[in-house]
Amino acid sequence: MKPIVDIAKSFGIDEQYIELYGKYKCKINLKIREDLQDRPNGKLVLVTAMNPTPAGEGKTLTTIGLSQALNLIGIPTIAALREPSLGPCFGMKGGATGSGKAEILPAEDINLHFTGDIHAITAAHNLLSAMIENHIYHGNALQIDTQRIVWKHAMDMNDRSLRKIVCGIGDGNGSVHESGFMITTASEIMAVLCLSEDLHDLRQRLGKIIVAYNMSGEAVTAEQIGAVDSMTVLLKDAIMPNMVQTAEGTPVFVHGGPFANIAHGCSSVIGTKTALKLADVVVTEAGFGADLGAEKFFDIKCRQSGLTPAAAVLVVTVKALKYNGGVAKNELDGSNLAALQAGLGNMERHIENIRKFGVPVMVVINHFANDHEEELELLIEHCRQLGVSAAVSNVWAEGGAGGRQMAEMLRDILEHGHSSFAPLYTLDSSLMEKIETIVHQIYHGAGVQMTPSARRKLEQIEGLGFGGMPVCMAKTPYSFSDQPKLLGAPEDFTVQIKDVTLSAGAGFVVVHTGNIVTMPGLPKVPAAERIYLDETGKVNGLI
Amino acid sequence: MKPIVDIAKSFGIDEQYIELYGKYKCKINLKIREDLQDRPNGKLVLVTAMNPTPAGEGKTLTTIGLSQALNLIGIPTIAALREPSLGPCFGMKGGATGSGKAEILPAEDINLHFTGDIHAITAAHNLLSAMIENHIYHGNALQIDTQRIVWKHAMDMNDRSLRKIVCGIGDGNGSVHESGFMITTASEIMAVLCLSEDLHDLRQRLGKIIVAYNMSGEAVTAEQIGAVDSMTVLLKDAIMPNMVQTAEGTPVFVHGGPFANIAHGCSSVIGTKTALKLADVVVTEAGFGADLGAEKFFDIKCRQSGLTPAAAVLVVTVKALKYNGGVAKNELDGSNLAALQAGLGNMERHIENIRKFGVPVMVVINHFANDHEEELELLIEHCRQLGVSAAVSNVWAEGGAGGRQMAEMLRDILEHGHSSFAPLYTLDSSLMEKIETIVHQIYHGAGVQMTPSARRKLEQIEGLGFGGMPVCMAKTPYSFSDQPKLLGAPEDFTVQIKDVTLSAGAGFVVVHTGNIVTMPGLPKVPAAERIYLDETGKVNGLI
Repeated sequence: MKPIVDIAKSFGIDEQYIELYGKYKCKINLKIREDLQDRPNGKLVLVTAMNPTPAGEGKTLTTIGLSQALNLIGIPTIAALREPSLGPCFGMKGGATGSGKAEILPAEDINLHFTGDIHAITAAHNLLSAMIENHIYHGNALQIDTQRIVWKHAMDMNDRSLRKIVCGIGDGNGSVHESGFMITTASEIMAVLCLSEDLHDLRQRLGKIIVAYNMSGEAVTAEQIGAVDSMTVLLKDAIMPNMVQTAEGTPVFVHGGPFANIAHGCSSVIGTKTALKLADVVVTEAGFGADLGAEKFFDIKCRQSGLTPAAAVLVVTVKALKYNGGVAKNELDGSNLAALQAGLGNMERHIENIRKFGVPVMVVINHFANDHEEELELLIEHCRQLGVSAAVSNVWAEGGAGGRQMAEMLRDILEHGHSSFAPLYTLDSSLMEKIETIVHQIYHGAGVQMTPSARRKLEQIEGLGFGGMPVCMAKTPYSFSDQPKLLGAPEDFTVQIKDVTLSAGAGFVVVHTGNIVTMPGLPKVPAAERIYLDETGKVNGLI
Repeated sequence: MKPIVDIAKSFGIDEQYIELYGKYKCKINLKIREDLQDRPNGKLVLVTAMNPTPAGEGKTLTTIGLSQALNLIGIPTIAALREPSLGPCFGMKGGATGSGKAEILPAEDINLHFTGDIHAITAAHNLLSAMIENHIYHGNALQIDTQRIVWKHAMDMNDRSLRKIVCGIGDGNGSVHESGFMITTASEIMAVLCLSEDLHDLRQRLGKIIVAYNMSGEAVTAEQIGAVDSMTVLLKDAIMPNMVQTAEGTPVFVHGGPFANIAHGCSSVIGTKTALKLADVVVTEAGFGADLGAEKFFDIKCRQSGLTPAAAVLVVTVKALKYNGGVAKNELDGSNLAALQAGLGNMERHIENIRKFGVPVMVVINHFANDHEEELELLIEHCRQLGVSAAVSNVWAEGGAGGRQMAEMLRDILEHGHSSFAPLYTLDSSLMEKIETIVHQIYHGAGVQMTPSARRKLEQIEGLGFGGMPVCMAKTPYSFSDQPKLLGAPEDFTVQIKDVTLSAGAGFVVVHTGNIVTMPGLPKVPAAERIYLDETGKVNGLI
């Protein structure tokens, strides 16, 4: 690792903008954007993927490796990633810092407390919760209906026992009512932070968060609770993008990490925009597959912030395609051209979908050691027939050098391709029309069914004046449909909508297809049992 | 402010030991203690106080000002303070960074997330909670009695609604049982971190924490839950002392902040010991008045860690003495020699108590602008009669220069006085004997009454083999007795003991005299309503 100030300087970031967190992590002061506002923006590239499978597709890995490779071929590039949450690190997932030779460093620090952003969000979230409870306790001037407090508590840990609680029990402890905890990455504050343009916008968005309804059914906002300025103070450092480096010295902005189901699943707008002022190309990713990640990246993040993506990269693997073609998880190693062929529809639909946004797309085949040559050939030939560039990436084993082919193809697209980006739907259509547009055009579903209560809530949200917001689909990532086992490229299914909730601060309406868990549990043998500090003070078992 | 690296260098701290958090905060790597182990230790001075009153005594202020003044008269001095918690900052108390010209900087940062220590403790605490719940959920091999889970959850926020909760509600969310949240500063992990000698000791202590009892009534430890190594990983940075500076450039270690009732209320042993290798004098403080703070500093912190205090400073104010002499809070401004005289007993007893530990003591009168000359004269003359040096301190208005008199008197004590420090009681006496010794000798109570359940728990704790631990009294700070309104120097009262709990990792038995609240609530108008970021990005209303 080089000192992070040196990495920063190599991309023209003056030391005055840097807040160090140790030698290898820093935050970039927001002032830099004002000072560089006249500089032209670099080009924005989205890395997305086919539907995720248990085999792992390597989207983060590819994002890191691609940024290394672009630098290698002489294009100054910054990667913009989401930051990991402690809960999954100690649960099942392991770290979120890439792996092999496409890794961001210092990986342990990034996966642990990093620069404290998520802790700050937890604190801001729980300050608001405490202020709501306190308002009720001291007389409830706003006439909050204690059965309709929608703002719960947050914690960056996987603890299923806190999903649903009864609080306020005992003499002098407030009003008894049901509540619960979500993991901090699911907090609306995380989404707000990631979509904010600056501190002022952050504060305004925080104020709009709806925390409860009063006895007359009217919305009560965080602004009315009087917590918003203090919450902004708690978030004043968290809003500054974090910079670290890859193993090859490529700068990486790691900032924000909202859920990709009940939120939009993209790193921060501030980080992306800052990086665009500093590099010719910014490579960023979005959560889950393209049906969720890319759609929300385009329809929520890019639309709200005015970002124009220049290209998209769709990560696929031979294994994941075979899995989508019907092969069981433990049989993916053997060559199976028929299954691969059967799974190609999944990739094809994602390509077609991305093109609907007017964004040029290329395919990256993330190569595994036990992929078979004839499978790769079939896949590449199929892409050729579809008229889409396809590169084999070997960044896990070789770092940036293993990504030269994809980098060169991407350079070609950025030089000669044309992005005519536009969101999929316009905001003036009804919420139901927006949902149907996504279901038909992106998922290829036949239609939508709503529970009566979801329909009622949708109408209420439109009645409250929020019908002009984009929708944020909370759906299984494993299928285009809302049924996790419907793999490949299913058609003619109906999407069931169970609930609709409003994230007025983030600026979207969440459409729940099924029961989305916002507080994970730990598995039988959590990663926490394997993680330890060795004699030399090094962390083991985390990544 | 000078860059913190420059402050560090001026005290011989090489840059290799420094982990920067911005330009003005850093952590000191623990390696420095190994590398400096042959260097002689400086002298340790405790700043304590008479019983606190609503007028405010200025113990932290005096600690900061005294360290500035000692440097001013040529004695290289470091102050060692506790770190502030977010809960009180947004509640009632305001910051904990001194004030006027005896302030530590950057005050806002220190009062907000600082270097993330408290967030790390919260995470380690809640990881253990989640692992306990998860152990039960996945089969409960340890046969934990879900009605006897003593390890609850933690949050660094004041939220009375979380004091008592029922968790695990709902299908698939674990076992339904009562639980609750404490503020993180009340977590045993905070006490453990502050009493640990190094990372290894931290890990061993964490393992000893008793989290529950099984169906046979046996203790279940954190070690058995398998969470301890991961908790240590979460705390690996938090254990390194933080360094900041006073407005006059004096280095200040701000590290750890355990409750002063259910814990020992002192900053970290590691911080104190590191500072002692770097300075001729280390000035530190302990929570509340000397009856709680100094007694625990001597009997718990110094005993466990082998520290030998060279002197103690007792902070008093004219107002607080008059308050103890019976004057109402809103009448403290007028001159009142009779009330002052009546209140002197409080100071006198604290002096006498400190001398029981063999530690030389001096009095510092923290001067307020509306103190009256004849009151100061009476107070100084009374100290002269008691044979104790007394200095008037004006550090709030004048900084180190206003503390010259106390610094010179202290220098005299450190040069010519003699400390024959010994704890008040020996560890081989019974828990009850220890409690009675403190009640008789420090509080001047006539005796102790215990509820039957407290007596049973005391016997259980001795039965479990923990009778050899020191006791940690959880008592009102406002009186020598357990009755907050019994001011001055009361005699012949009986101390009521309601509960006894074991902090096996911290290494003490907590004796509860009354109902100690470990999760504060917010007041009717919380400080959070006044705190905001101004247009220039400066925090207002926090301190």
